[in-house]
Amino acid sequence: MKAIVLQDSASPDNLRLVERPILKPRRQEMLIRVKATALNYRDVEITNGTYHTAFSLPLVPLSDGVGEVVEVGADVTRFKIGDRVCSTFWQRWVGGSFRMAETGYQRGGPYDGLLAEYALLDEQAAVLAPKNLTDVEAATLPCAAVTAWHALVTEGGIKAGETVLVQGTGGVSLFALQFARLSGARVIVTSSSDEKLERAKALGAFAGVNYQRIPEWGDAVFDLTDGRGVDHVIEVGGPQSFQQSLKACARRGQINVIGYLGGREGGINPLDIFTRQVQVRGIPVGSRESFEAMCRAIEVNDLRPVIDRTFHWTDVVAAIGYLEEGSHFGKVGLVHG
Amino acid sequence: MKAIVLQDSASPDNLRLVERPILKPRRQEMLIRVKATALNYRDVEITNGTYHTAFSLPLVPLSDGVGEVVEVGADVTRFKIGDRVCSTFWQRWVGGSFRMAETGYQRGGPYDGLLAEYALLDEQAAVLAPKNLTDVEAATLPCAAVTAWHALVTEGGIKAGETVLVQGTGGVSLFALQFARLSGARVIVTSSSDEKLERAKALGAFAGVNYQRIPEWGDAVFDLTDGRGVDHVIEVGGPQSFQQSLKACARRGQINVIGYLGGREGGINPLDIFTRQVQVRGIPVGSRESFEAMCRAIEVNDLRPVIDRTFHWTDVVAAIGYLEEGSHFGKVGLVHG
Amino acid sequence: MKAIVLQDSASPDNLRLVERPILKPRRQEMLIRVKATALNYRDVEITNGTYHTAFSLPLVPLSDGVGEVVEVGADVTRFKIGDRVCSTFWQRWVGGSFRMAETGYQRGGPYDGLLAEYALLDEQAAVLAPKNLTDVEAATLPCAAVTAWHALVTEGGIKAGETVLVQGTGGVSLFALQFARLSGARVIVTSSSDEKLERAKALGAFAGVNYQRIPEWGDAVFDLTDGRGVDHVIEVGGPQSFQQSLKACARRGQINVIGYLGGREGGINPLDIFTRQVQVRGIPVGSRESFEAMCRAIEVNDLRPVIDRTFHWTDVVAAIGYLEEGSHFGKVGLVHG
Amino acid sequence: MKAIVLQDSASPDNLRLVERPILKPRRQEMLIRVKATALNYRDVEITNGTYHTAFSLPLVPLSDGVGEVVEVGADVTRFKIGDRVCSTFWQRWVGGSFRMAETGYQRGGPYDGLLAEYALLDEQAAVLAPKNLTDVEAATLPCAAVTAWHALVTEGGIKAGETVLVQGTGGVSLFALQFARLSGARVIVTSSSDEKLERAKALGAFAGVNYQRIPEWGDAVFDLTDGRGVDHVIEVGGPQSFQQSLKACARRGQINVIGYLGGREGGINPLDIFTRQVQVRGIPVGSRESFEAMCRAIEVNDLRPVIDRTFHWTDVVAAIGYLEEGSHFGKVGLVHG
Repeated sequence: MKAIVLQDSASPDNLRLVERPILKPRRQEMLIRVKATALNYRDVEITNGTYHTAFSLPLVPLSDGVGEVVEVGADVTRFKIGDRVCSTFWQRWVGGSFRMAETGYQRGGPYDGLLAEYALLDEQAAVLAPKNLTDVEAATLPCAAVTAWHALVTEGGIKAGETVLVQGTGGVSLFALQFARLSGARVIVTSSSDEKLERAKALGAFAGVNYQRIPEWGDAVFDLTDGRGVDHVIEVGGPQSFQQSLKACARRGQINVIGYLGGREGGINPLDIFTRQVQVRGIPVGSRESFEAMCRAIEVNDLRPVIDRTFHWTDVVAAIGYLEEGSHFGKVGLVHG
Repeated sequence: MKAIVLQDSASPDNLRLVERPILKPRRQEMLIRVKATALNYRDVEITNGTYHTAFSLPLVPLSDGVGEVVEVGADVTRFKIGDRVCSTFWQRWVGGSFRMAETGYQRGGPYDGLLAEYALLDEQAAVLAPKNLTDVEAATLPCAAVTAWHALVTEGGIKAGETVLVQGTGGVSLFALQFARLSGARVIVTSSSDEKLERAKALGAFAGVNYQRIPEWGDAVFDLTDGRGVDHVIEVGGPQSFQQSLKACARRGQINVIGYLGGREGGINPLDIFTRQVQVRGIPVGSRESFEAMCRAIEVNDLRPVIDRTFHWTDVVAAIGYLEEGSHFGKVGLVHG
Repeated sequence: MKAIVLQDSASPDNLRLVERPILKPRRQEMLIRVKATALNYRDVEITNGTYHTAFSLPLVPLSDGVGEVVEVGADVTRFKIGDRVCSTFWQRWVGGSFRMAETGYQRGGPYDGLLAEYALLDEQAAVLAPKNLTDVEAATLPCAAVTAWHALVTEGGIKAGETVLVQGTGGVSLFALQFARLSGARVIVTSSSDEKLERAKALGAFAGVNYQRIPEWGDAVFDLTDGRGVDHVIEVGGPQSFQQSLKACARRGQINVIGYLGGREGGINPLDIFTRQVQVRGIPVGSRESFEAMCRAIEVNDLRPVIDRTFHWTDVVAAIGYLEEGSHFGKVGLVHG
Repeated sequence: MKAIVLQDSASPDNLRLVERPILKPRRQEMLIRVKATALNYRDVEITNGTYHTAFSLPLVPLSDGVGEVVEVGADVTRFKIGDRVCSTFWQRWVGGSFRMAETGYQRGGPYDGLLAEYALLDEQAAVLAPKNLTDVEAATLPCAAVTAWHALVTEGGIKAGETVLVQGTGGVSLFALQFARLSGARVIVTSSSDEKLERAKALGAFAGVNYQRIPEWGDAVFDLTDGRGVDHVIEVGGPQSFQQSLKACARRGQINVIGYLGGREGGINPLDIFTRQVQVRGIPVGSRESFEAMCRAIEVNDLRPVIDRTFHWTDVVAAIGYLEEGSHFGKVGLVHG
């Protein structure tokens, strides 16, 4: 089979299309024919060598994808040949708290990812893809969508009538917008682009704030909430952004720290967490139980992920370059086969 | 002022329109001019003398209503003159578990209700009425809507993609249907009337089961869930109904026991709770915190209660008779003034 | 190796000591040398053919035990040779809600149990045995102790100062007593034997009620709680007992339905769950996450299981007979090797 | 009656013993004869004018105390004359989330505190003092003990077997130590004094770390946990301390931000919350429901607060000076009458 591997050292130039043997599924494993994959910023960092961990190479990158089960090993009972399944990011986080995740078992590094024609998945590390989604749509779920779901629903217990602040229009943020709307919540979006704010409103956002025009956007967001503040924040922006999020929050508001797209520099005074009486937590994607619950929500409500653009999987270098530019609105997918 | 009181002994014949003095609000109290009230089955029972508790008479009935604040006593800071407020059922259950409710402080018995031109409310026992609702709509919230919200949202933690079984088309059941839809859940309704099932579907129900045609409706509901079972049940039907609900449930499904409209006779084997691995709990209306959270959801989503019919408040005997007939679909309201 | 298998049909007479090959651990499996096992009432029922499910025979019985890892298969990373591990009852319930349990994967039926010299365990279906326990003590944990922990701690969220009602002095009840005391809670025990009540008090119970002398023991328990009622019930007694438990409960008290040692006959009116405003749930043993949390509590507090009596594993028929008599106080263990 | 008031401007010199009329309890109020009070660092700051809010003067200081009900106003049903009650810090936070607290209703500023012979309490703002405590012991509960309980139990859901890090030996920290031990958890204490660490161990702490000798005490604490990290932190030390706490934490460890005894200077990178996958929240004392649950735990386990030293209430200036020195171990109380 064909696969793309990151060879020798991390660099987009070292992503090579190679020939690899198709492996036999062992006990509790299954072989899938990959139908689509999707990019996360983590994949960009791994490729560029800027990810906080260096994995041994060669590595087949990309944690997120969907495929069809074509062969099953011994003792596989969760799936059968012909099923369409998504990979999970944490290979061994079935349910319960993050302490059950057995770190080290992440797909797309250190474990080989899905940027290939075929891949082996443990049956515990896969879920049935929602029936209503195309392959590319289903491929976008494992990291970005599960992160948004885990933050808002599993950990956040989002309720109808609450207000959610999502930052920017990347994959996690748009999934958060969609799940919040699905749950009867109100959404405020920030962006540097008025055009993207309009598109977010078309997806159901209640209001948008251009953070470039309004540097103190935390206050602006607060003012949109009738003096209550926001109940949930999807914080993808780093320390500077966190300062503003603190200002936007209601008492007992929940700040989900997910990333640092706005840079890693700066700091906050943790006493502000006391003064503002908020709750803060890191969100490590989510468990398979979260993933499966989310799939039901997607099917029941026929929710469709926002796909910005699709590439052929062998054009992954171009796709990575496009994601790095930062002009996308939603997910970037790769079609296989 | 005019008020209707239940005099001498419980019986619709003893509901009398009388003249009463307008009382001055004391510390932490406010006087409201009642604008609308609404009936619950509890009010029917209290009037008929079939309620499980007998209250001292004379009693102004009806726990649910909305009014305008026209005078405030000392130390009132939550509201000001001109505010439109709903009464709460539990006068002293502000938040936290039901243990904090101080039973005995229920409006409409033993405490005087709102079937009058004016009423006194403790400021802790009132909430701002949702701005988007008419007076009659707002009047329907305190018992039926809060019960549905408390069951599904506060206690049940409902999530998008889950399935809710609601029984019949009375006030609590239709609010449950609406809140479930608002939260991205799927709803299955039972009724003895195909016409009502159609109306429930028009409100967003996914499917309906006619329990008269299908006595083993528990299995029929289960079959509608792709072999998973329902996640939440609004159980308003008594022991016979409970047996069917057990069959309809998913593992860890939650049965909220609210009433006995289908009769009080019969029993269940509690071991079935073990065998089916479900969770069961009584729902005692809900706290003011639940009420306020619900009001935000109603406003944010412009949800409108289903009003079956409206009477003038002095025609309460006719309204009670109508509710007793059981042909209603949604709430029965009373207009004051 | 030697093993005891239930052959042909369920009956203690069909428990036979046989010779079986030692199997090689496959991927994600490990071979353990069994050091001790323990009996649960489920094992008695399976042997007698009275269990609600019939398993295919021959079957090696007994879900609960402890052993030393002597060989590991491919991809085993959670354990290494020499580790002392307990089996888990649900082979595939790692964490999260019971919906993640993949029913059908129970040890001791349908999956072969530990009544043998060696056994294969999936590495996901084992936990490190608490260091402070003997082999027989550790062998008693998988069902009885995890059930008590899951009911009181994982699902029940027990807090210091609460009151727990435990029924009888079997394995689950005594673990519940010990975990409740460990958590700062107060325990009331019922028994038909004053002598056992005294022994329960020696273990830390606050009070005991002899249910044979006081048939309305629900009221007697309530009276011991200063008018508040009990917060948690370990309900092992069946429908008749459930009636009394309802009377003993506080508002929002939690009744954990676990068994039917007092018989399966009778029924309750589910409206009593509404009237008493309690919560009821079935307890299906518990997840591995519960098991591991419990082991930390056992080690940190040097808690020791109560062992009533120990047999050699080849005397399992006598041990089963002893458990059936019902005169035990705590667990019945079996020594291997 | 006699009272001590902070007059003109904040300064210990302006604490004056004055004569004031005894007020009549109004509706829902009661008059208590104060029997004991206790100091919190907040009282020191209010007196010194360093508290983040300036209250209108004159003000009777001190939020924490206990007294006997000597007269009740209209509609008081929770208490009767002769009851011994503690004040609550948040006058109107009965239960539920902190959003229900109605900020602005704090005792000891802006509302008059208990440093007087008599005080008025709303019946919703008082709890029965635990029977097993002396007056001075009961007086120490409203802020420090409720803060520790709310952090570990109400919000933290502490479980037997978990590990708690408490910083220093002030009031909140020692209550946290005691509640953690009561709940079957293990406690690690930091202090600059080996002697205090020994006293903490005598109270049940598992280990102590001298943060003066070991500046990187976060790593030292982590090393005491067998590679797991601590589950709960009582963070009273400010930004520098927070950095160390992050290192000490387990995945999903909970950091309760309570104060800044170690200074307000410095900052953290919020991305560390993501990297370490911890949860952080401010703790605003706690609700009356938390207070009442705590009192049951205190009674059931006969837990006794640690009193460092007791002054006569008219020597409050000396008591404040003593607390400022920072050499105390536990609470500083004031005897009235």
